[in-house]
Amino acid sequence: MNRLTVVKVGGKVVEESKAIDHFLTEFRKISGNKILVHGGGSLATEMASKLGIETKMVEGRRITDAGMLDVAIMVYAGLVNKKIVSGLQAIGCNALGLTGADFGVIRSRLRNHPKIDFGFVGDIEEVNTKELRLLLEEGVTPVMAPLTHDGYGQLLNTNADTIASSLAVELSNLFNVHLVYCFEKQGVLSDPADENSFMPRLSYSKYQELKEENVINSGMIPKLDNGFNALKNGVTEVVITNAQHISSGKGTRLSHDLEK
Amino acid sequence: MNRLTVVKVGGKVVEESKAIDHFLTEFRKISGNKILVHGGGSLATEMASKLGIETKMVEGRRITDAGMLDVAIMVYAGLVNKKIVSGLQAIGCNALGLTGADFGVIRSRLRNHPKIDFGFVGDIEEVNTKELRLLLEEGVTPVMAPLTHDGYGQLLNTNADTIASSLAVELSNLFNVHLVYCFEKQGVLSDPADENSFMPRLSYSKYQELKEENVINSGMIPKLDNGFNALKNGVTEVVITNAQHISSGKGTRLSHDLEK
Repeated sequence: MNRLTVVKVGGKVVEESKAIDHFLTEFRKISGNKILVHGGGSLATEMASKLGIETKMVEGRRITDAGMLDVAIMVYAGLVNKKIVSGLQAIGCNALGLTGADFGVIRSRLRNHPKIDFGFVGDIEEVNTKELRLLLEEGVTPVMAPLTHDGYGQLLNTNADTIASSLAVELSNLFNVHLVYCFEKQGVLSDPADENSFMPRLSYSKYQELKEENVINSGMIPKLDNGFNALKNGVTEVVITNAQHISSGKGTRLSHDLEK
Repeated sequence: MNRLTVVKVGGKVVEESKAIDHFLTEFRKISGNKILVHGGGSLATEMASKLGIETKMVEGRRITDAGMLDVAIMVYAGLVNKKIVSGLQAIGCNALGLTGADFGVIRSRLRNHPKIDFGFVGDIEEVNTKELRLLLEEGVTPVMAPLTHDGYGQLLNTNADTIASSLAVELSNLFNVHLVYCFEKQGVLSDPADENSFMPRLSYSKYQELKEENVINSGMIPKLDNGFNALKNGVTEVVITNAQHISSGKGTRLSHDLEK
């Protein structure tokens, strides 16, 4: 099977032009088919604030009301997605920007939480890779914004880490899929205070231990849960690494317990 | 050759959900392959105003500075494009939203005007239909926002009427192309004061006469220039009609002088 690398990037890397350009040059070096899934960093919150739209938080989690959804659509599908696409085109990478609504790639369902109304947030129900496969065969690089649709005309804000792992799993029937989560650190740290303590490998049972000991912080948990889920469901390799070193092969590789 | 209908829509029709939905239901009825090219109506100006970005005009024409370009990207490629795409998906039309940067569909050059610096405005240089053709064959409906790229990473604001005619001409080698420009009136009026005076046919020489007599207003001129240009360059039929009646076949048909 051909190799396909699915890269998730977010945070500071997508917030300003210079960091985006540096990252895209690294991303470009990955050989074979690739898909980029991006977040929006703090740009949506900043734009909402400029527009006088209040960022609502319930129990520490952001709520996507109608105004905030419009901002997310403008920032994620507009500003961030199209700057990445035009930046990739400039360095010879034939990129296509997408949301989950385009081609109907990702259909989701409004989140139904027993206690919190998250607003226009979608949990993934179905991934359709028909057109993606066709385009990957043509050498096109899809660039996914963290938005999906419900199939009834409603766009929904959706976690980019989950989009990346869902696409990786769905495409693992056809490709040898490598999933790469980028963030600011070198990998998963065994000592949060020591930047150089990153673990080259992390097994699921070790991950559970580190979670219980509170060594792994809450921001990493969705990435790791999605990563281990992908590994269990057919993805060949999952790596957590620094956004500036994705082509180097460094970072933390998730491993099955058998290999620990 | 298979039939392909390229529809350009803008103005009030794209400004609010109810009008968009009504239009999309009409658009959906068109049989065969189709492409939708949209403008942004006054939404970009409104959003710029909310963000405190001044709309600069020189000699009656809008200037796209860096701030206004970001607004155009957010509104055209984000808000308007993705609402159309999710709306079409909801009624069974497999839409894909695009700008000229995606797939490198439309490369343009920064406008070089002897007197006015229009800012980030692009004039079309090259149309690449490779991936579009592939997707049209798969039954996908491309939805184009009025933005292009220069091939060096810069997005540029580009006239939607011109995008529609350029795509129509380029695809006329492979398809029997019908180009439809939608606006608020029933067609081209011979008496601007009389809504019912629309001409079922308009030849190029008659158009020149009406322009000299100032019967045709300035807003219609780019549509008609683009339309006659398309007709001369291989497009089968060009119609100017009301956005709510596109599937009815009504409106003004442009004709070669031979047929007048």
